[in-house]
Amino acid sequence: MTLFDIDPLTEPAAPEGPLVRVRMLVAYDGREFRGFAVNRDVPTVAGSLGSAIARHLRLPHVKISCAGRTDAGVHAWGQVAHIDIPEELPSGRKLDLHALQRSCNRSLAPSIVVRAIDLAPEGFHSRWSAISRSYRYTIVNRPVPDPFLAGTAWHVDQPLDMAAMQKACDALIGEHDFTTFCKKSPDNGSLVRRITDTTWRDLGDGIMRFDISASSFCHQMVRSVVGTLAEVGLGRRVAGDMAWTLRARDRNQAGPPAPPHGLCLWEVGYPPELGLRSESGPPMGLRGEEAEWERGS
Amino acid sequence: MTLFDIDPLTEPAAPEGPLVRVRMLVAYDGREFRGFAVNRDVPTVAGSLGSAIARHLRLPHVKISCAGRTDAGVHAWGQVAHIDIPEELPSGRKLDLHALQRSCNRSLAPSIVVRAIDLAPEGFHSRWSAISRSYRYTIVNRPVPDPFLAGTAWHVDQPLDMAAMQKACDALIGEHDFTTFCKKSPDNGSLVRRITDTTWRDLGDGIMRFDISASSFCHQMVRSVVGTLAEVGLGRRVAGDMAWTLRARDRNQAGPPAPPHGLCLWEVGYPPELGLRSESGPPMGLRGEEAEWERGS
Repeated sequence: MTLFDIDPLTEPAAPEGPLVRVRMLVAYDGREFRGFAVNRDVPTVAGSLGSAIARHLRLPHVKISCAGRTDAGVHAWGQVAHIDIPEELPSGRKLDLHALQRSCNRSLAPSIVVRAIDLAPEGFHSRWSAISRSYRYTIVNRPVPDPFLAGTAWHVDQPLDMAAMQKACDALIGEHDFTTFCKKSPDNGSLVRRITDTTWRDLGDGIMRFDISASSFCHQMVRSVVGTLAEVGLGRRVAGDMAWTLRARDRNQAGPPAPPHGLCLWEVGYPPELGLRSESGPPMGLRGEEAEWERGS
Repeated sequence: MTLFDIDPLTEPAAPEGPLVRVRMLVAYDGREFRGFAVNRDVPTVAGSLGSAIARHLRLPHVKISCAGRTDAGVHAWGQVAHIDIPEELPSGRKLDLHALQRSCNRSLAPSIVVRAIDLAPEGFHSRWSAISRSYRYTIVNRPVPDPFLAGTAWHVDQPLDMAAMQKACDALIGEHDFTTFCKKSPDNGSLVRRITDTTWRDLGDGIMRFDISASSFCHQMVRSVVGTLAEVGLGRRVAGDMAWTLRARDRNQAGPPAPPHGLCLWEVGYPPELGLRSESGPPMGLRGEEAEWERGS
């Protein structure tokens, strides 16, 4: 079984008869799940969401594909998923996407929220059509923890030098072999990835936010990068050594991965012809409740 | 037993020998507690914090006073509490406030966090010396919930008119009898309170924040005010009727109280001579880790 390239458990089902592809913009609190991908033994996002959809549509089961299979404990704000369902539902009812969205949110929110839903345009695949992924990592850099950020940010109680962490990122930009920062897997293909942006922001009160975008990421890559950057921030590594660390292609040269609960799959980008807007406003222009609902109307 | 004026369970203890008064700036996640005040049958903030302090100092028990006894489910960022402890500890050790803070945070964080700690100046009492309290209420006004704000904000799925809610606040400013907005209690004294500020802010993405300051608040007052303002925001009440609602001195005229998890005791104000700073920077200038710790030092 290949864990990160093809996962038979989450490949689209191929029921008989014509299918329609439905896509969803999904947010979830990763603490409650052992990752996205279906695993029959533990609660996962795809498992819970698939069951809720199947129950509502009275289908025996639903297989879910997604843009980024997040690990155990990792959150998502802008996960994109799709399902293929029969054009003719077993119940004989017409497919009502808003009713499906409401039904999922009624049974799964706030742990999992379907933020928007629509029919996918021709040729759309949540994973293979995606051209970029953005992850966000949040650190609370204060001597004492914060009750309200404890579930979504890593508490680092020693002062971090954010400028040094930003400087160390320079070496990451561009196309590189990220073996140093990727968890080994027997099925790993190429670990070459193209990073397009890395930005640290000081949000005040010790809250530091790291945004990183790439064509795609390999397993545990963002957490390993953040863990290594934190060692730079703590003065245990030199920012200028980052290029060497990357070129070493040796996982032992990376710092320990930062904890999963500070990480969030923030946004997935698609080509314009696939109808997903990249400008500001709602992160995705799906025709869900979110897009149709106008404040004050 | 008087619930809101004197609570024997949380009055300072009077052990033999000279005492020192220690004050603390405390944050907590209210979801995990049945309010602040000690109750032997259920988990409370004072119960958990008092036990942790007593354990560390090897005292039989510690009684905690605070500035605002929050209800079940209500959060605090800037709660101020104090304890009176014997100058001579039973262990014979010298009182080390930083060690006490670290010990509390080790056993209670992130549910309860002691943000700062110091010796109280002469004449200080967390409750009776306080001259102002500020509460913050957060609403997420979107069609679908938000996994990451679900624990600290009220999700309202119908559009709220924030301008109307702000207008309705005009009637609240100043000194009034708040019987309409206070939960009845056999021990209620005067329900006259002085509100000094009410501000709604649109933080974007449907997040609305309400800050309200007063000399003090009576029981369930902020939640009742927010619940009533939300009815204005939803168009079920007219903003201009708020003055009449207040003058009615009739609890039946208020809207249902907004849920507790959106509410947070934000800050407590003291006179300058009691050494608590009101300017920006760390909310309180206590000599805790927070004040001594300088980023980058």
